[in-house]
Amino acid sequence: MDRIPSEEDIAKTHKLIQPYIHRTPVLANQSINTITSSNLYFKCENFQKVGAFKMRGASSAVALMEDDMKYRGIATHSSGNHAQAVALTAKLHGIDAHIVMPENAPSIKRNAVAEYGATIYTSGNLIQDRETKMREVLEKTHATFIHPYNDYRIISGQATAAKELLADCSDLDIIMAPVGGGGLLSGTALSSKYHNPSLKVYGAEPLLVDDAYRSLKSGKIEMNHRIDTIADGLRTMLGEKTFEVIQKYADDILTVEEETIIWAMRLIWERMKIIVEPSGAVPLAAVLEHPELFSGKRVGLIISGGNVDLQELPF
Amino acid sequence: MDRIPSEEDIAKTHKLIQPYIHRTPVLANQSINTITSSNLYFKCENFQKVGAFKMRGASSAVALMEDDMKYRGIATHSSGNHAQAVALTAKLHGIDAHIVMPENAPSIKRNAVAEYGATIYTSGNLIQDRETKMREVLEKTHATFIHPYNDYRIISGQATAAKELLADCSDLDIIMAPVGGGGLLSGTALSSKYHNPSLKVYGAEPLLVDDAYRSLKSGKIEMNHRIDTIADGLRTMLGEKTFEVIQKYADDILTVEEETIIWAMRLIWERMKIIVEPSGAVPLAAVLEHPELFSGKRVGLIISGGNVDLQELPF
Repeated sequence: MDRIPSEEDIAKTHKLIQPYIHRTPVLANQSINTITSSNLYFKCENFQKVGAFKMRGASSAVALMEDDMKYRGIATHSSGNHAQAVALTAKLHGIDAHIVMPENAPSIKRNAVAEYGATIYTSGNLIQDRETKMREVLEKTHATFIHPYNDYRIISGQATAAKELLADCSDLDIIMAPVGGGGLLSGTALSSKYHNPSLKVYGAEPLLVDDAYRSLKSGKIEMNHRIDTIADGLRTMLGEKTFEVIQKYADDILTVEEETIIWAMRLIWERMKIIVEPSGAVPLAAVLEHPELFSGKRVGLIISGGNVDLQELPF
Repeated sequence: MDRIPSEEDIAKTHKLIQPYIHRTPVLANQSINTITSSNLYFKCENFQKVGAFKMRGASSAVALMEDDMKYRGIATHSSGNHAQAVALTAKLHGIDAHIVMPENAPSIKRNAVAEYGATIYTSGNLIQDRETKMREVLEKTHATFIHPYNDYRIISGQATAAKELLADCSDLDIIMAPVGGGGLLSGTALSSKYHNPSLKVYGAEPLLVDDAYRSLKSGKIEMNHRIDTIADGLRTMLGEKTFEVIQKYADDILTVEEETIIWAMRLIWERMKIIVEPSGAVPLAAVLEHPELFSGKRVGLIISGGNVDLQELPF
């Protein structure tokens, strides 16, 4: 796919990946609605396979790949949800996965990838180390690299979460997704504006890593100078492809304080009795921090995932 | 209701309480099925109002009450989920609730009851203190006492959880609920045997408080000599009414070690991404500890609730 996915592209992607993903539920909660004076609908990608929306993108990348490329295997470097998604997708398609993980990746994540039968290659912790090791692996294996977000096939896959949300939940005023590398927000924005151009689309981002906010203001991709947010899925900067889609199709980026992320995460755990990772609580944090935008509105929030280390909870 | 609820009684109860309860979902999880070599169906009462099945019993007690009794208000003594359920039920019916809570009740539980508009009375921590204070309150207010489990109206209400599970999930071989005072297990056993007399019904109980197990063996209600299980909802002993139903309609009680409860709770949190309290994880613990009974079977498990103090997690 060599251009921004069209409405038809996304519909086709959705059909292709349906056998490999869960259709996740949309939940609402009376007491959180009361607290926020709004009607919130949570698209629960924490219940997705591998515990995160990343499964949609990885499935889409493989489904849209030429057969001869597919059979050479797929590869990525990641210490997070994308690695698991690529590994499981390869397993489901009966092809090889080659995953480069940094030395400091938690053993729980390494084990999850190994459980899916992927081959793991250990690299140094710096991004340069990971990329060097990745190049070596690709040269040796001829596997196809799957970028975690800067790829139209990935964007088309991530777009299916909002597509399902909009099918299940009519008359939304606003839809919001967290933004890290921008794959989920790009896809969300495309599905939303194709569905209804007057639907507002916001990205939600920790203030500590507000690169997407600054990028939209400056008109060029900005970097983060620190990455110590609790929302570990959102530490990445945008790619050119995701930036272009977000510039064209998203309305704004809302930033949130760390303590609001923890408050939002706790509200979801305590009131909804579901487990979300800090990144997945960032959209609710934005509702809590910017009530003037949401009061009285019907708002769809994409909970990106539910993979947390129970030993390292912020409360 | 002055006798063991019949199938028709339970159907009538279900109709009466439907406006006041959630129809909770039944979830399954591939990786837990693989670990246990069985097909498990989790009835998620952690998503019930007030976060526990207790809402069914409280709603049922009020729905089956004469109007003149109802309008005098309802009362109970409890530091747990039953207190919240009585308080919310009173609020939904526009009647008064009087709740006796011990001094050492966690402020989070006290606040939840207060939020529903109930009047709270503080007593000493011993069960005698609570009962003395309760008698004083009942004399003064003429409110109707709602026992947490030893009441056929309560049993009929709790029976609706298994009734829904059996409607959503065909051909179960076994159904299992945790057992503390026995309200949930009694109701589960009734609904199950009315549905299909050959369906096996087990109660699951921590070994540390195995009073129900010993009561079934000895033929009389046994007490617990220690109550320090992590499954704080299951520390109570049976009542005569629940004991009679369990003797007649349940097949067996399975006991589990504390560490298996924590393992089961962790599996549910990590794999299913939902929050269950330790008591709610006890049936899965029984599957893990007694695999020979469950291997290859279709098993319905009732997750009793999801109210945990996030500051006091066992992992």
